[in-house]
Amino acid sequence: MGHKKRNKEDMAGSFDLSSLTPLAPESMKPEIRRDPVTGNWVIIAPERAKRPSDRRAKPAPQPVILCPFCEGHEDQTPPEILAYRSPGSRANEKGWRVRVVPNKFPALEKNREPRDFTQGIYQKIDGAGAHEIIIECPHHETSMARLSEKNVGEVLSAYRERLIELKTDRRLAYGLIFKNEGEIGGASLEHSHSQLVGLPMVPAAVQAELDGARKFFETTGRCIYCEILTEEFLSALEVFGTAGFIAFIPYAARFPFETWILPRHHGSHFEEIQNAAIQELASALKTIVTKLELGLNQPPYNYVLHTAPFEAHSLPHYHWHIEITPRLTHLAGFELGSGLYINPVPPELAATFLRQVDPPERALRSRTPG
Amino acid sequence: MGHKKRNKEDMAGSFDLSSLTPLAPESMKPEIRRDPVTGNWVIIAPERAKRPSDRRAKPAPQPVILCPFCEGHEDQTPPEILAYRSPGSRANEKGWRVRVVPNKFPALEKNREPRDFTQGIYQKIDGAGAHEIIIECPHHETSMARLSEKNVGEVLSAYRERLIELKTDRRLAYGLIFKNEGEIGGASLEHSHSQLVGLPMVPAAVQAELDGARKFFETTGRCIYCEILTEEFLSALEVFGTAGFIAFIPYAARFPFETWILPRHHGSHFEEIQNAAIQELASALKTIVTKLELGLNQPPYNYVLHTAPFEAHSLPHYHWHIEITPRLTHLAGFELGSGLYINPVPPELAATFLRQVDPPERALRSRTPG
Repeated sequence: MGHKKRNKEDMAGSFDLSSLTPLAPESMKPEIRRDPVTGNWVIIAPERAKRPSDRRAKPAPQPVILCPFCEGHEDQTPPEILAYRSPGSRANEKGWRVRVVPNKFPALEKNREPRDFTQGIYQKIDGAGAHEIIIECPHHETSMARLSEKNVGEVLSAYRERLIELKTDRRLAYGLIFKNEGEIGGASLEHSHSQLVGLPMVPAAVQAELDGARKFFETTGRCIYCEILTEEFLSALEVFGTAGFIAFIPYAARFPFETWILPRHHGSHFEEIQNAAIQELASALKTIVTKLELGLNQPPYNYVLHTAPFEAHSLPHYHWHIEITPRLTHLAGFELGSGLYINPVPPELAATFLRQVDPPERALRSRTPG
Repeated sequence: MGHKKRNKEDMAGSFDLSSLTPLAPESMKPEIRRDPVTGNWVIIAPERAKRPSDRRAKPAPQPVILCPFCEGHEDQTPPEILAYRSPGSRANEKGWRVRVVPNKFPALEKNREPRDFTQGIYQKIDGAGAHEIIIECPHHETSMARLSEKNVGEVLSAYRERLIELKTDRRLAYGLIFKNEGEIGGASLEHSHSQLVGLPMVPAAVQAELDGARKFFETTGRCIYCEILTEEFLSALEVFGTAGFIAFIPYAARFPFETWILPRHHGSHFEEIQNAAIQELASALKTIVTKLELGLNQPPYNYVLHTAPFEAHSLPHYHWHIEITPRLTHLAGFELGSGLYINPVPPELAATFLRQVDPPERALRSRTPG
């Protein structure tokens, strides 16, 4: 029994997807397939099997010397798309503060048209799109909480700049920006980074928000998100507020300590944010991730920037925001089968808890100037 | 750096949700909240925070002597609801083969009415429902693949019997049966078991299937699932077939090696399955989980029984089935934010791979008679 248990714990799930690569025809390019029953889209991306493994018995230790995101290793990524640099420094060399590069293992490909194929009940689209990495700092920092506010502000500026650029790509309908932190959060490299996927369709989760918000607007003439920010509905759920932003636990939080940051001022498109607001948002975002790190002991987490589709003009019913989801519970059979989530931490309790976590300046001292 | 890395790997995410329990008011009962934007339901279940932790640095080792699901430990679970027993054995004592008990940490409560509360934009329902555990064998077996076909057949019989019983509970609209295997799969106890959650509403993921299938039926007069089983659409995706069942990779598989088992004969309600078909399904299910264990090295996985809602009569457009999802990839920011999945293993390649995994009789010898 002892041997079996060891075997189960150490080895279970250590199947390496990259071992399948030789089986895949060289020509197998990504495609987006439609489920014939639900209509949901799935990205089939064989290139992703080659990346640092998704699922090993233990996360591979990552010596800094091998980190492809560290300053001095610029030749280990595809050539940069954007970088904020010291005057005089050259592209793909040292001297950058934030750097955006194409993903080496892209889910969707840049130089392709999204052609549509139908064969009876099955429909697919060529895997055309964009997949970029925003490397958040030049030194090997594994936590966004330890970046300076100015540094986080430049990360947000890079989000804005890339969205504005990708908006001009007529193949794309949406730009999804997100961050995976920790192994359970889905990060395959620990150096602090976020990602941007440009999609040829508006994804289902965003469409569900747009539809729900439009319905509320048509009935009431009001933005549902602005409504959520009113005192009546917010007070028990608020974590903190600044002049321009509010951080709170949503009423129907899917995850323990799920936290949203909303701008007080209505706006549907993140990329229209002004510089002053970017700095204030950077401060709010750093405060939240610091509270999560301190209060929940460095949890794995994700955040996602929710913003309106590229082709939409200013929408009176939609309100851009950031959703931060610590990953303290596993998504299991119930969630997959039902589409419902089970959250063991009441939102009001999570808000009380996070309000009380007071980030001491020393605890997570910034390592970057600013 | 060495110290910091160790700290990060060993301690990260070791926050224990049960530490919050003292903060929660005693009277805090489960409730089902509606997201005011999307309309999605979330179960807020404070009792669940007390269970063996969801998220520890390492899974707690579990001496057999402490396993509450093992024969002889019947007093460590709530009193049994159903058990298949040796003649002469008594309820809540030794002598059972499969045993169904209420979940000690229920997501939803049995003795409650699903009252509805609305406060402005917020709506919630009392957390009324059912949450049961199907303990699949009396000995401490951690893998369903090692149960005998007869044993698996009795597990499926228990599913049928419990669905038929819960159908008479007028508070309930749906019975969701699922299995979590492995820590990443969401299992908090390793002794082989599955779960049944009785819900006061049809869950969103099931409703999406019903809606899509109905739409196809209205257009074509045919069941979309029966269509999927035709040679034209199945051949490249089939893993194996028996007289009554087909196991295959779905065209738009969300997970690497996701496998569905469908009955060839159309039927919308699993609970109407006959005994002979149960034995054949048990054999097919055991074959698939054995192939996954051998081919993918004991991966964490989930399976979910997809069946029609309680109140529906025989539906010509819906077709019950089992969806088995190995969990080799993490659900990360992209999936949460978009509702889309990224699957690095093309379904046709997964089918070829699983067809070639040939379970040798010795490799996973059944430990139970039959």
